[in-house]
Amino acid sequence: MKTYLDCFPCFVNQALRIGRMVTDDGAVIKQLIDEVGVMLKDIPLTSIPPETGEIIFKRVREISGIHDPLAEIKNHSTREVLEIYPRLKRMVLDSADPLLTAVRLAIAGNVIDFGIHDDYDIEKEIRETLVKEFYICDIFPLRRALDNAKNILFIGDNAGESVFDRLLIETMGKPTIYVVRAEPVLNDVTYVDAVAAGIGQVADITSSGSAAPGTILRSCSVKFRQLFKSADLVIAKGQGNYEGLSEEERPVFFLLKAKCPVIARDIGVETGAIVLKRSDV
Amino acid sequence: MKTYLDCFPCFVNQALRIGRMVTDDGAVIKQLIDEVGVMLKDIPLTSIPPETGEIIFKRVREISGIHDPLAEIKNHSTREVLEIYPRLKRMVLDSADPLLTAVRLAIAGNVIDFGIHDDYDIEKEIRETLVKEFYICDIFPLRRALDNAKNILFIGDNAGESVFDRLLIETMGKPTIYVVRAEPVLNDVTYVDAVAAGIGQVADITSSGSAAPGTILRSCSVKFRQLFKSADLVIAKGQGNYEGLSEEERPVFFLLKAKCPVIARDIGVETGAIVLKRSDV
Repeated sequence: MKTYLDCFPCFVNQALRIGRMVTDDGAVIKQLIDEVGVMLKDIPLTSIPPETGEIIFKRVREISGIHDPLAEIKNHSTREVLEIYPRLKRMVLDSADPLLTAVRLAIAGNVIDFGIHDDYDIEKEIRETLVKEFYICDIFPLRRALDNAKNILFIGDNAGESVFDRLLIETMGKPTIYVVRAEPVLNDVTYVDAVAAGIGQVADITSSGSAAPGTILRSCSVKFRQLFKSADLVIAKGQGNYEGLSEEERPVFFLLKAKCPVIARDIGVETGAIVLKRSDV
Repeated sequence: MKTYLDCFPCFVNQALRIGRMVTDDGAVIKQLIDEVGVMLKDIPLTSIPPETGEIIFKRVREISGIHDPLAEIKNHSTREVLEIYPRLKRMVLDSADPLLTAVRLAIAGNVIDFGIHDDYDIEKEIRETLVKEFYICDIFPLRRALDNAKNILFIGDNAGESVFDRLLIETMGKPTIYVVRAEPVLNDVTYVDAVAAGIGQVADITSSGSAAPGTILRSCSVKFRQLFKSADLVIAKGQGNYEGLSEEERPVFFLLKAKCPVIARDIGVETGAIVLKRSDV
């Protein structure tokens, strides 16, 4: 997905929001806003939004002097979901359709996105997502792909959300490689976050090689690009991965809640819609 | 009111929204966004937001090559309210409290603000504002000030809204000077818009001397500053005038709907609140 004009105010808003998460010093936040403002003219409409997100967060890290500024927030999210994990597991096992229930829960977990907002109620999100109607639900193509797949490449999104991903991976029951960001960016899942979520018990963990808050192939490692090309089945969680991979020429199953109106429009759904979409390839 | 950090993304968003109102050319809108982005670093937190609004709109006028880019929108708003004016007049005359009803209607008219959003339903707004509870309602101080006033300085806000202002001025029944912006800015009321609204039949019309979308004394004419100082009673409509005058050292009655969350917080009310507030002087 390319950058839309609507993304530009949002980049400045992102600087403000993240700035506030890492410091109370208004002058530092103003400096970050100023820098992002000057940067706008160098962001072409042909770029992919997470490319800009990466640059903004790099400055957040530099200005704050902290390698992983949202580490505490991420740890909290992970612990919060681990606490309810046994109950989530039970929901899936007791369900008439364990795969669909695990998919729904994995989408519910996608609300833990500090790039978009910092107030969410995970219990409320779970209750709603379990019964909400899908705007797009390619569950039959997913079942078919799953039946034929010997391996799965599962591209994670946010810390905390990874615990839900773990449940979906367990439910699918195929050899899986779980992909994390190479460096801390927003509250996106990194290697340590994935391990903390227990992903290591159900999948191999590898890095995309990129520090963008989304998977943009040209900024990923050769190793990852090879994995992406050769995997039998690719599942990508969340908006950032959709933004990066929506125009790639291999089938990808996107699982997300369309929180951003621009991305929702790009997918062709309403804001707030839950989506399990196989890319049109 | 000073500029808050939250205002900065909003300035870029304003460039986008106004850009879209005046052109379909995405490259031109991008240029405007880029320029506003670069400008952010030169906007101190001590400035008053409409000062930035003035600069942004000046660029909109230059880029579009149109003196009054929202002229058609303003004319439409004015005609729309003139059509229902007889009905509004009847509501006031039939009311148990004509002054309060005229105040409520004048606040309803404040929704015609293209600086904030471009979709409103004036009939719905009137229905709701006539029965909505005020968050702050200094109607008794207003009545007292009105009883003692020999003249009123009434600072207008938006075109279309002026027709509601006319009704309030008629209802108050005192010699009034109606203040308009010196140059077109957003859909703010200028001399020609005020005349089109029939303000000339109930008040003298004068310019603030400023092209800011709000009344900031340091950018107003000497003549206006004198009027502001000497008037028995000053009424200021809308957010822009509040932003400019909220810290001046003379009593001002602000009539507005708090549409912007930052301004709402500054006033101490909820977003969406209707307010008749005498400044604390």
